[in-house]
Amino acid sequence: MDESAFEQALARIRDDRVHGAGEIARECLRLMVESARAIDAGSAGALLTLLRARAERLAACRPSMASVHNLLERWRDQADAIGEVPVADARTLAAKAARSLIEQSARAAQQAAEHLARHLGGGKILLTHSLSSTVIALFERLVPLGVSAIVTESRPLNEGCLLAGRLGAMGVPTTLITDAQMGLFAANADAVVVGADSLSAEGSLVNKAGTYLLALAARDRGLPFYVCCESFKRRPPGMVEPALEEMNGGELGAPRMVGVTAKNVYFDITPAALVSAWFDENGITAGRGA
Amino acid sequence: MDESAFEQALARIRDDRVHGAGEIARECLRLMVESARAIDAGSAGALLTLLRARAERLAACRPSMASVHNLLERWRDQADAIGEVPVADARTLAAKAARSLIEQSARAAQQAAEHLARHLGGGKILLTHSLSSTVIALFERLVPLGVSAIVTESRPLNEGCLLAGRLGAMGVPTTLITDAQMGLFAANADAVVVGADSLSAEGSLVNKAGTYLLALAARDRGLPFYVCCESFKRRPPGMVEPALEEMNGGELGAPRMVGVTAKNVYFDITPAALVSAWFDENGITAGRGA
Repeated sequence: MDESAFEQALARIRDDRVHGAGEIARECLRLMVESARAIDAGSAGALLTLLRARAERLAACRPSMASVHNLLERWRDQADAIGEVPVADARTLAAKAARSLIEQSARAAQQAAEHLARHLGGGKILLTHSLSSTVIALFERLVPLGVSAIVTESRPLNEGCLLAGRLGAMGVPTTLITDAQMGLFAANADAVVVGADSLSAEGSLVNKAGTYLLALAARDRGLPFYVCCESFKRRPPGMVEPALEEMNGGELGAPRMVGVTAKNVYFDITPAALVSAWFDENGITAGRGA
Repeated sequence: MDESAFEQALARIRDDRVHGAGEIARECLRLMVESARAIDAGSAGALLTLLRARAERLAACRPSMASVHNLLERWRDQADAIGEVPVADARTLAAKAARSLIEQSARAAQQAAEHLARHLGGGKILLTHSLSSTVIALFERLVPLGVSAIVTESRPLNEGCLLAGRLGAMGVPTTLITDAQMGLFAANADAVVVGADSLSAEGSLVNKAGTYLLALAARDRGLPFYVCCESFKRRPPGMVEPALEEMNGGELGAPRMVGVTAKNVYFDITPAALVSAWFDENGITAGRGA
């Protein structure tokens, strides 16, 4: 994977509006695997310097997504331990470290989904916002027990429509609504379930814009609000609040109008006080009202 | 205006997604003016029977909009008082009653806007949802004093884009956002202002879906939430909660997907407890936290 292929891949990840933070973080690690195999270097030292520089750029490319930062940070720690070995061995060790983190991250997401599925049990109507691979894993576990979904479209690019299509195809009776109908349809749901792009040490979450509104509606309607994600999405205590990524206002699709600026902030912050419980690979952490 | 022209006009009003309840109610009264002038009838009694039937159909055509019902009810009370007069005089009186109600309604909306404009004063950033002619009248008054707007697009048909265009053209610096960004942008606003399709006797409001979410966000952010509309939008005590009109799910524009049903409920209900104050032609009524 040469410099220009890497730059193209980085740009694709930066512009990705369809995958959640978990999948994007694992995609970054896959780039590290490919880079470890193919980057041009004559010694382990030179190889690791080049790879660390790529990891650093990847770690910074999606500031709202803590797992991207955390997993690449973890990879760099392991790369630091490789030391003076033949370059071929360094390639193998660096790729293996990245592959192992991909597996840990994917397994953690599956385990988080498993814990929440057990907590919920069958026969529930679940309301969700945005597109989370962990939430899809949750529905996969609940299908045999019976489950229905209410899914918001998630403007501006409507990745909620993709989620609705996935769930419908899995056999989950799914209702697709505009984001504005969240408050209305919260009255029909048993619980709200969302993934997260990032969790603070205290448990506030950065997630697709609108998640905060959904949490407010859940509290007002007396519904539990559950967050389900691998612990790689937690920011360590003291790490700064992530920037809320702002995308091109043109994605709203509004005509150009004098005096009007379209804004497209992709994420909002839901305070920990609005969360009923967090689920990760280690199980449940109870929150509000627990 | 013969039967088929009336039916066409009625269908247009039923499908109107762009005008607020005040404008739609006044449009219904304009149809009564035209009907009074042109409907085929040989006596005052026959004329009034036909007109009452049209008024009844118009009164029922937008169940979420109390002003449509209330103003046509008011017209029918006045029609009942016309009595036995030559048919030409009955036409004049019936048309005059409708015209007078149009004027009263329009004046009341202007006065409500005037009261809220005085309360707000200049230099504010106002966040609004949906398209309300009363809210436009409010901005008209505030332009000379300085005012900025944050406007939601109001899915599915984005009448908020029309509002943003109107405000921008009036010289109001306007930020257009997705409905999902309401919670985020509430942090940048000084107050929330909305019209209403209908108010209960206790002050809960039926308005475009998403208004309830905006009221929750306003409370959570400590922002005042102001409702501004003519008192014709109040339902009398004991009148049943209006049906929340549901439109074609196809308006969401999602592809057809197995197992997925798109829902498009146009209105939600915001409890009175979330309202800081109501403004109508008579002035302010203080609510939450006052």
